[in-house]
Amino acid sequence: MNEIKEPRITLVGAGPGDADLITIKGVKALQTADVVLYDALVNDELLNLAPEHAVKVYVGKRSGEHYYEQSAINQLMVDYALNYGHVVRLKGGDPFVFGRGYEELDFAADYSIPTQVVPGISSSIGVPGLAGIPVTHRGLSESFWVVTGTTASGLLSNDLYDAVRSRATVVVLMGVHKLKEIVKLYQNEGRGKLPVAVIQSGSTENERVAIGVVDTIIEVVEEKQVKAPALIVLGDVVSLHKDYQPIKDFYAIADKE
Amino acid sequence: MNEIKEPRITLVGAGPGDADLITIKGVKALQTADVVLYDALVNDELLNLAPEHAVKVYVGKRSGEHYYEQSAINQLMVDYALNYGHVVRLKGGDPFVFGRGYEELDFAADYSIPTQVVPGISSSIGVPGLAGIPVTHRGLSESFWVVTGTTASGLLSNDLYDAVRSRATVVVLMGVHKLKEIVKLYQNEGRGKLPVAVIQSGSTENERVAIGVVDTIIEVVEEKQVKAPALIVLGDVVSLHKDYQPIKDFYAIADKE
Repeated sequence: MNEIKEPRITLVGAGPGDADLITIKGVKALQTADVVLYDALVNDELLNLAPEHAVKVYVGKRSGEHYYEQSAINQLMVDYALNYGHVVRLKGGDPFVFGRGYEELDFAADYSIPTQVVPGISSSIGVPGLAGIPVTHRGLSESFWVVTGTTASGLLSNDLYDAVRSRATVVVLMGVHKLKEIVKLYQNEGRGKLPVAVIQSGSTENERVAIGVVDTIIEVVEEKQVKAPALIVLGDVVSLHKDYQPIKDFYAIADKE
Repeated sequence: MNEIKEPRITLVGAGPGDADLITIKGVKALQTADVVLYDALVNDELLNLAPEHAVKVYVGKRSGEHYYEQSAINQLMVDYALNYGHVVRLKGGDPFVFGRGYEELDFAADYSIPTQVVPGISSSIGVPGLAGIPVTHRGLSESFWVVTGTTASGLLSNDLYDAVRSRATVVVLMGVHKLKEIVKLYQNEGRGKLPVAVIQSGSTENERVAIGVVDTIIEVVEEKQVKAPALIVLGDVVSLHKDYQPIKDFYAIADKE
């Protein structure tokens, strides 16, 4: 029989996809894991960092496809901790950016199981950055606003209605299925010429990028076959992307005519 | 004489302070560095990851104290790349979150020096998370908005005037010297009871946390001696911090009386 281990839980952010974008602290947590509970958007390679004896359980959740209910994940996490010891809860991006991480910590607290958090690279910042789009840039953006495209109600977040009117760089996570609605919101505000990027599978070899303006982005997304999982970046900073240069040239010519 | 090396530049996000919060990719970049140019808020331990022969140059910038001008850093970076080979530009947090990273990439591009970006854990998300404050949480926040407290003009960012009226969790970086002005903005909107956290040196052993509401936070910050470098989190998610419970109890009693 195995020795009885102290139950504990570490929430670890796995980053946006590239396995090398996990932190050293995340690697150390995985190396001492007895159980790893991991999500859909987590790179499988990271599981090899856990010891061979560790139990690896897929509790994948994707936008639109709920493999496990959140309550079932919470219970599984606690049960494994009580029976096996150190549970690493490995989540895509950062655990607290629409990751429901706090709900998991809170559930564990009810069982007096010690918890720890290891932040991860959030796709909201890292994915645009890797694609050559800084979320802030002098003269173009003094702030960025990160909104979810997938709320519990299924409707667009009310916050997006405000974000559309702001000067912030707006990053919409899990919102590509709502792109038409989002485009409409910006057009209603007379912002059809605002630069937009849609980035699928950022930081991985499957990355696809569509660059346009609000008025053209749906067409570009279709042409480049950019699909979920993807994020949307709206703001003048997108004009710094190399693919934006021809668009800039086009508008410069159109303005002259 | 040394062999001549191909010039290249890697912008690396060092994360919020804890040396273990750099990514594997960041470590790999440092291990092949010929030169490391590093900022004030970067953990010194990270320099030990670079080879012994690597030149390490402090080009520190802090809010209020400009050690090197940005243009001087750009030039230094390019000169070192041309003469030494691989320059790692190590920046606190993420290079693109108020880090002026894109300006550095752009400058390098003028010299046709190849560049790469390695994202880092941004303090804006990681520091609240490590302190037990999720930037998003079901029922409390569907978005977060990150604003700088230090603009080029020295004035509060215009974006903050809008952020104050939003439902987003608002994170102000490098803004603790503007706390009184920020408090005033929220009070003018009738939001004096909104939960606030001010966190100094998050993720390090020098971390200090002040938890209160808009109306009380200045007093708490003074009492707990929380100073720059610090960030401010404003929003209902702050009520999830353990130190908020007594405040909640206080208002519950006050409401009954």
